[in-house]
Amino acid sequence: MTKNKANIVTIGGGSGQYVLLAGLRDFKEANIVSIVSMVDSGGSTGRLRDELGILPPGDILKCVLALCPDRGSARKILQTRFTSDNRLKGHNAGNMLLSMLAQYAGNFPDGINALGEILNIRGQVLPVTIDRATLVAELTNGEHLYGERAIDVPQGGRREKIKKTFLVPHHSEVISVYPPVIGAIGSADYIIIGPGDLYTSIIPNLLVPGVAHGIKQSKARLIYVVNVMTKFGETDRFTAQDFIKEIEEKLDRKLDIVLVNNKKAGKELLDKYKDQKAELVEVNIEDGWQGRKIIIGNFLSTKGDILRHDAKKLLAAIKDILN
Amino acid sequence: MTKNKANIVTIGGGSGQYVLLAGLRDFKEANIVSIVSMVDSGGSTGRLRDELGILPPGDILKCVLALCPDRGSARKILQTRFTSDNRLKGHNAGNMLLSMLAQYAGNFPDGINALGEILNIRGQVLPVTIDRATLVAELTNGEHLYGERAIDVPQGGRREKIKKTFLVPHHSEVISVYPPVIGAIGSADYIIIGPGDLYTSIIPNLLVPGVAHGIKQSKARLIYVVNVMTKFGETDRFTAQDFIKEIEEKLDRKLDIVLVNNKKAGKELLDKYKDQKAELVEVNIEDGWQGRKIIIGNFLSTKGDILRHDAKKLLAAIKDILN
Repeated sequence: MTKNKANIVTIGGGSGQYVLLAGLRDFKEANIVSIVSMVDSGGSTGRLRDELGILPPGDILKCVLALCPDRGSARKILQTRFTSDNRLKGHNAGNMLLSMLAQYAGNFPDGINALGEILNIRGQVLPVTIDRATLVAELTNGEHLYGERAIDVPQGGRREKIKKTFLVPHHSEVISVYPPVIGAIGSADYIIIGPGDLYTSIIPNLLVPGVAHGIKQSKARLIYVVNVMTKFGETDRFTAQDFIKEIEEKLDRKLDIVLVNNKKAGKELLDKYKDQKAELVEVNIEDGWQGRKIIIGNFLSTKGDILRHDAKKLLAAIKDILN
Repeated sequence: MTKNKANIVTIGGGSGQYVLLAGLRDFKEANIVSIVSMVDSGGSTGRLRDELGILPPGDILKCVLALCPDRGSARKILQTRFTSDNRLKGHNAGNMLLSMLAQYAGNFPDGINALGEILNIRGQVLPVTIDRATLVAELTNGEHLYGERAIDVPQGGRREKIKKTFLVPHHSEVISVYPPVIGAIGSADYIIIGPGDLYTSIIPNLLVPGVAHGIKQSKARLIYVVNVMTKFGETDRFTAQDFIKEIEEKLDRKLDIVLVNNKKAGKELLDKYKDQKAELVEVNIEDGWQGRKIIIGNFLSTKGDILRHDAKKLLAAIKDILN
């Protein structure tokens, strides 16, 4: 009897999703489908959205590059920013190319598939929706923040907590899920949520009608990767339990397995993060908490001066779960 | 005393220019400026010209890739054709990207420079003009052929000879040379013309007002690389002397140095070319012919089943000339 490949669906966006997929790329015994939120409005991606009226290319580009066998060369060509003093300054070739492919093909998924084809990627990257929308955060004081960038980059030193978030469609009365997303969730053996910014990368997927319900109904084992760091303006002082509760509330379902980093970073690096009012997520949890499998261990990357998950350590933990 | 770097200007287009630049990329003692004709109207490039109203990206892309240090990866990503059954089919990422960069930056040269920047190219690639134009060939029977593709791909088995070619501008009464082209020619120590299709890649550069005159006035040594093969519909039965005479007539100046391949190809390969009514260019010439330096030797590539110049052999001959 040959063992069928496991279907793994990941849900996220941004750099967290990149790290997870960078590891999963090398997991030959699994089919990978990455579902990516469509609300990024910062930087190059935000400019392209505003100027061309397209869906945000940046997070999709990151995920496609993560799954590319020759990732080094592809990133060098497609993620190097233009520096010359003209309108291209600050953009990268990947965002420009994906925007062009999507516009020319006439739809975003065909553009993504074309990029995936020439980069020979392992797996598939799906936008959670192909309807354009603005992410709105309602703060505890009733204030509304419009757009991922406004939520992501707190102005001034103080910020009320986020009470809830919702999506406002640009061109229709409802936002529709991209149908293959529901198909992928339905046939998943494992669904991995996170890591990533809770309110601006992860939850925007769950706000698209049908996604949370699909996950709730799914027979897949549901894995959640708790972030390494808190984030001021989003998850200020969140503990591991806070992250889990927030996700479970959105899903109306208990998580099966939770990965939690307990490796401490060096003081110098933590001091840098303190300037951004970010700190290591407190591990106020142990295995078996309220019936969940909690895997606590060292998932920290030791490269560079960014505190984030290590692709290989995540992959190793996921392989353990599947065996 | 330090020796200044030699300024080498190449003039051409298409695959011939690619081979020349692929060799020159590794000539560290020279500054390379490649001047490229802007009349390609076939394939992916032709479609993009028609659909987007842009300048032709294909030849520029080839030249930029030739000058890229990590050419293998860059070509794999940017020259692989899309195969999925949608509007992108048959295009490649490089043409799409360059079109996007040019459109977004607002002008073609800024798009080329941006592509060159992320590919970290050695040297510079200049379009001979940024005015859009159609190449017209007048045959000996008075018939007109419109566009590079129509000239390049003879319909049916018979074709009158080309009597003359000219450029018809699309949006103005005259075609203007892109000014940096004149600057590059003026400061060149060596100008290398060819190899490449005579009427559809090489001469279209010389038809742009100011280019032939600039070359005539230049103090640079003028080198011409005679094609390896004749081409039906363009240079049917042309000998080495025929090629030289045609170029010199357009320039109103004698060439200083001519490179002529005399290496014969195998019968099997020549038979394939015979199907396309193409044959090895006859070497009816010797060194010193009418006062020109004629370098006759083996410049033939031994790779694949295309009869063309070898990048390294061309480079070696050019290095010899400069020493």
